[in-house]
Amino acid sequence: MNDLTPDTEALVRSLAQRVALLEDKLAITELMTAYGPAIDSGSAEAVARLWTEDGVYDVDTGVMRGHAEITAMVRSQAHQSWIEGGCGHVLEPGHTRVDGTTAVSTCKSQLIIRDGDSFKVHRVTATRWNLEKIDGQWKVTVRTSRVLDGRAEARDLLAAGL
Amino acid sequence: MNDLTPDTEALVRSLAQRVALLEDKLAITELMTAYGPAIDSGSAEAVARLWTEDGVYDVDTGVMRGHAEITAMVRSQAHQSWIEGGCGHVLEPGHTRVDGTTAVSTCKSQLIIRDGDSFKVHRVTATRWNLEKIDGQWKVTVRTSRVLDGRAEARDLLAAGL
Amino acid sequence: MNDLTPDTEALVRSLAQRVALLEDKLAITELMTAYGPAIDSGSAEAVARLWTEDGVYDVDTGVMRGHAEITAMVRSQAHQSWIEGGCGHVLEPGHTRVDGTTAVSTCKSQLIIRDGDSFKVHRVTATRWNLEKIDGQWKVTVRTSRVLDGRAEARDLLAAGL
Repeated sequence: MNDLTPDTEALVRSLAQRVALLEDKLAITELMTAYGPAIDSGSAEAVARLWTEDGVYDVDTGVMRGHAEITAMVRSQAHQSWIEGGCGHVLEPGHTRVDGTTAVSTCKSQLIIRDGDSFKVHRVTATRWNLEKIDGQWKVTVRTSRVLDGRAEARDLLAAGL
Repeated sequence: MNDLTPDTEALVRSLAQRVALLEDKLAITELMTAYGPAIDSGSAEAVARLWTEDGVYDVDTGVMRGHAEITAMVRSQAHQSWIEGGCGHVLEPGHTRVDGTTAVSTCKSQLIIRDGDSFKVHRVTATRWNLEKIDGQWKVTVRTSRVLDGRAEARDLLAAGL
Repeated sequence: MNDLTPDTEALVRSLAQRVALLEDKLAITELMTAYGPAIDSGSAEAVARLWTEDGVYDVDTGVMRGHAEITAMVRSQAHQSWIEGGCGHVLEPGHTRVDGTTAVSTCKSQLIIRDGDSFKVHRVTATRWNLEKIDGQWKVTVRTSRVLDGRAEARDLLAAGL
């Protein structure tokens, strides 16, 4: 047993690190999957909370900096019109790379809106989530979204995520 | 080593709990991702098996209670017409909260149907999965789906998932 | 302590196996989620790298065998036209079964293309990923995709994934 135990101790230390990494990856998924329910229900504070206090949400149509600008977007007439008309921001699973307390996740999102008796894809967007673990909690520092309408910028964003 | 081992034992106990939680989260994902292949292939028994015996599937158009009503829906002319015409029920990753042997996962699903030479989004739906671990297996107790056509009910369902 | 430690050692061995399985499942997700950013950015080598050297990509319109045929598809005029026109290959989470060093994941993918000022779903496809772990790395050995236009082949592919 004296032979076995030192090995076991080393294995336990290694498992602790590996489990922590798995937990980080699932925590990042939980953070990203909270965006959809929050944005489509108009829960402005819940949307903003996903970002750090000074976090940036950089979309084609403009850049929001900090919680106040993000909540203002959710409460804007433009966004409220999507919600009232019927919409869903649908996310695919992210391709996530964790490096210690920072991470990058790359994926696409669809904005689907009601169109008479059915729905249509208003846009499909390449999106990168820059994430940071602060006091044990993952937050978005910068989210960058570019519509996939053929522009090089959107393709470059996707290529950089590989 | 006598100093180290008690700490290691405590770490192992804690790792065992953390690994069990990670396993639960992935098991829930596996349960939810089985719905799509089952429903789109018309595998009625495989669909029903995801629910508990008396599980409920509550959709806008009606409530199904128990396996017999769920398999009847899959075998119905209405559902068979979707399948024969060409359709895909596409799910995004769920926002999942586990609390011991119960869990709630919130996400959106799209029903995409063939429309001539291409396809269209027939509907996008907010969906909540209430789950329970019974004899070591996660099952759906209630799944509630509300179309995102602007109705408050669908938004409330999403907000409650946060 | 002599009583406790053998139990702990057994638990550690069991945790090591369980953690390895969780790592395999997340590694498979990371492999599959790399496809989207690679294909939509036209990163031909990054697409091919997901497959084994002699890996097969079997789609309705033809079968590609090995890296050279896969990169040729990405660089083809047909695929470049999708990218330049604006497109997104959107994946849902896979239903994944791991069996040692092989795995099968079943899900659907959408090809969304620009259509004037908005987008449309060009096709929704049932897709099976046959995977193998080689030298510690998961790779695609065969990916089979069949459009969900009502054909039995696509439904059979989905049913086989359950």
